[in-house]
Amino acid sequence: MSTKKFLLQESDIPTAWYNIAADMKNKPRPILNPGTKEPLKPEDLYPLFAEELAKQELNQTDPWIEIPEEVRDLYKVWRPTPLVRAYGLEKALDTPAHIYFKNESVSPVGSHKLNSALPQAYYCKKQGVTNITTETGAGQWGAALSYAAKAFGLELAVYMVKISYHQKPYRRSIMQTFGAQVIASPSMSTKSGRKVLTENPTYQGSLGTAISEAIELAMGTPNCKYTLGSVLSHVMLHQTVIGLEAEKQMEMAGEYPEVIIGCFGGGSNFSGISFPFLRHKINEGKDIRVIAAEPASCPKLTRGEFQYDFGDEAGYTPLLPMYTLGHSFAPAHIHAGGLRYHGAGSIVSQLRQDKLIEAVDVQQLETFDAATLFAQSEGIIPAPESAHAIAVAIQEAKKAKEEGKQRTILFNLSGHGLIDMAAYDQYFAGDLSNYDLSDEELQKNLSTLEHII
Amino acid sequence: MSTKKFLLQESDIPTAWYNIAADMKNKPRPILNPGTKEPLKPEDLYPLFAEELAKQELNQTDPWIEIPEEVRDLYKVWRPTPLVRAYGLEKALDTPAHIYFKNESVSPVGSHKLNSALPQAYYCKKQGVTNITTETGAGQWGAALSYAAKAFGLELAVYMVKISYHQKPYRRSIMQTFGAQVIASPSMSTKSGRKVLTENPTYQGSLGTAISEAIELAMGTPNCKYTLGSVLSHVMLHQTVIGLEAEKQMEMAGEYPEVIIGCFGGGSNFSGISFPFLRHKINEGKDIRVIAAEPASCPKLTRGEFQYDFGDEAGYTPLLPMYTLGHSFAPAHIHAGGLRYHGAGSIVSQLRQDKLIEAVDVQQLETFDAATLFAQSEGIIPAPESAHAIAVAIQEAKKAKEEGKQRTILFNLSGHGLIDMAAYDQYFAGDLSNYDLSDEELQKNLSTLEHII
Repeated sequence: MSTKKFLLQESDIPTAWYNIAADMKNKPRPILNPGTKEPLKPEDLYPLFAEELAKQELNQTDPWIEIPEEVRDLYKVWRPTPLVRAYGLEKALDTPAHIYFKNESVSPVGSHKLNSALPQAYYCKKQGVTNITTETGAGQWGAALSYAAKAFGLELAVYMVKISYHQKPYRRSIMQTFGAQVIASPSMSTKSGRKVLTENPTYQGSLGTAISEAIELAMGTPNCKYTLGSVLSHVMLHQTVIGLEAEKQMEMAGEYPEVIIGCFGGGSNFSGISFPFLRHKINEGKDIRVIAAEPASCPKLTRGEFQYDFGDEAGYTPLLPMYTLGHSFAPAHIHAGGLRYHGAGSIVSQLRQDKLIEAVDVQQLETFDAATLFAQSEGIIPAPESAHAIAVAIQEAKKAKEEGKQRTILFNLSGHGLIDMAAYDQYFAGDLSNYDLSDEELQKNLSTLEHII
Repeated sequence: MSTKKFLLQESDIPTAWYNIAADMKNKPRPILNPGTKEPLKPEDLYPLFAEELAKQELNQTDPWIEIPEEVRDLYKVWRPTPLVRAYGLEKALDTPAHIYFKNESVSPVGSHKLNSALPQAYYCKKQGVTNITTETGAGQWGAALSYAAKAFGLELAVYMVKISYHQKPYRRSIMQTFGAQVIASPSMSTKSGRKVLTENPTYQGSLGTAISEAIELAMGTPNCKYTLGSVLSHVMLHQTVIGLEAEKQMEMAGEYPEVIIGCFGGGSNFSGISFPFLRHKINEGKDIRVIAAEPASCPKLTRGEFQYDFGDEAGYTPLLPMYTLGHSFAPAHIHAGGLRYHGAGSIVSQLRQDKLIEAVDVQQLETFDAATLFAQSEGIIPAPESAHAIAVAIQEAKKAKEEGKQRTILFNLSGHGLIDMAAYDQYFAGDLSNYDLSDEELQKNLSTLEHII
């Protein structure tokens, strides 16, 4: 646990988010109207999202978007977050690699999700919205949005994926303590929820279904907008504060990361840590590898198809260009609830298509092995999601050892696992499993995709 | 949630702990051998404690004791901690008072306990000890010591009070993740545990009983020392880093606290925040009020007796001069497990005797009201223990409003409550109670005390 922190001042908190779409040679494909197959304009998104967020979503021209002062003030509650040289982990691995992690777990809700929750709540409030809805998997996003809704005086309803509602009751309580309504999804409170429950009464839910329910509630509630914690381009945009700070901190450390790793659900923390570094790969040809670490049971980037698909289970969203497993894919019950999503955001999908990023899938047991080693060597118990990034960082550090090469590795510790201790209990008791996704099951889901690309 | 943080640099971490006993006009009374009633010398404590800790325990001459470089290096993992001006809480209370809190919840284990866990593990390791034992109530101390034991490569066994073992299973898991053995107390693994269980098979435990078991195990294990998270003077000493940092930070804020508040179990976080300020009251007559916030169900400072008593239930410890409810006192099942202890440390007891500090007792429901208001206005969910300090800070802020006076209040946020969400659930469901300690029950326990003072 002999760590070294690289700390910035409040004045180092970025004043603008980085919009990678402006720099990409191949722009992300447009979002389409599912009926007409026509590209959407910002105003088409206004019924669902705050106007400023809809504009950010489709902005492919401005590389820098100013962070409102009110948001930056709230970032100061916990930002800048530390960059840590993981000497303890390096020693445990006996590796020549230098391992750094950006510690986003220090936020008051325990994860990076607050980076986007605050601006989303802010833009809604500024527009006079009074109510917002959302979905949450493990509850990290829901907890963050509950905090942000309270900070800006908004009412919030959260559909929480049922498996997580039961696996992680403390995160439900955190949301309720901040004053949010929390409903287990699928629920009987929406048409889409009822449909799923009718077909499969014991279904434990997925982010796709929870999104459908949250959209349905938003559409049926006056002065209410929907918000999303990942996948969409404006969420990736907000998360770039992570990588922008990390860039300065790596400079303080006198090194440049050759490998950058984030765990991958829909892409929010992965984009946050990597996009600011990727801009130097895109603009200046900087030689770096960027790796998305996803669960073997939900391998959209490693085994999915690049195609237009819905962002939710019921098909309420527009069509998004994404690496997808099919929007009706029902992921296995892994503890990394935040990674149980069928698709990747449109920017990340294009970057993957253009081979600017890589993806690796990891089995659940390997992630808990990695998490325990990290906890015992660095003193922080990671969230099961973040453990995927740690597992891949360890793989890379071991490779460096085999090759006898120094290598500088940076990963994002997106959140702590203090609310996920039941998962650790199961792991220590030998009750956790790996989950394989069979080719048959995969093909069955992919076959439902309409072929537009 | 419009907070303002006052941040220090790593170089501002204190280089020495403050030993208030050296400055006290009336020294704490000596610790006595229960048989001979003779004052103990450091060497009498060597069988139980690391030698350096035993010396610190009885040191009443040196006001400053140097912090070893190895400990200071590990303090850097999370220290200095922020001092926060609680604008959100002030606004919610509409008070002219200025409220500040020292945020000790940012430590990797979520509480101030790591401040003493690290030096205790360090001094044991330095002396060649291989195994340590301890007790824990809510699990904050046990989690901290598990981290410290892992950091210094020691084996650790923790007796966790049974009620907390069941109320707070995640803290048990945290200890296990760091590699510690955790046993619910009372247990069948010790003579003292078996005796308690024989007399009362359903007894849910107390810190007093858990201490007895931990001491018994340490005495019967080769190369093993016992460690304690509160009550003893060397623990208070280590915790003074809190107040020493806070002093500098209050100076940055351009104010001086007129009221300083800490929750009170055995005294560790209370001493940590207050002793550095009390030295100016003792040495220069500075006009400040220092308030210990204790549970109404365990009111040693407000209703206990100043007398010699054992530190544990079985009577294995030497006799300590303390405000006590009697060492066989069985506290009610409040969620603030860290405050369920029968006695106050000898220094705090002497300060109370000399009217240098005050004490207030608070009912459980008032502490959860305060905790919820704090969470919703400051964005941090506090530990049930810390909520006692918040409740008293709110009382003082309301008084300031009634009197129409500005008043500067500082309290210690000793830990976060993310592992205590089950308690919040019960509170929101209306399932939490207040607990009154009847005079009859109190007198019954006090009557067991031998009258030495």
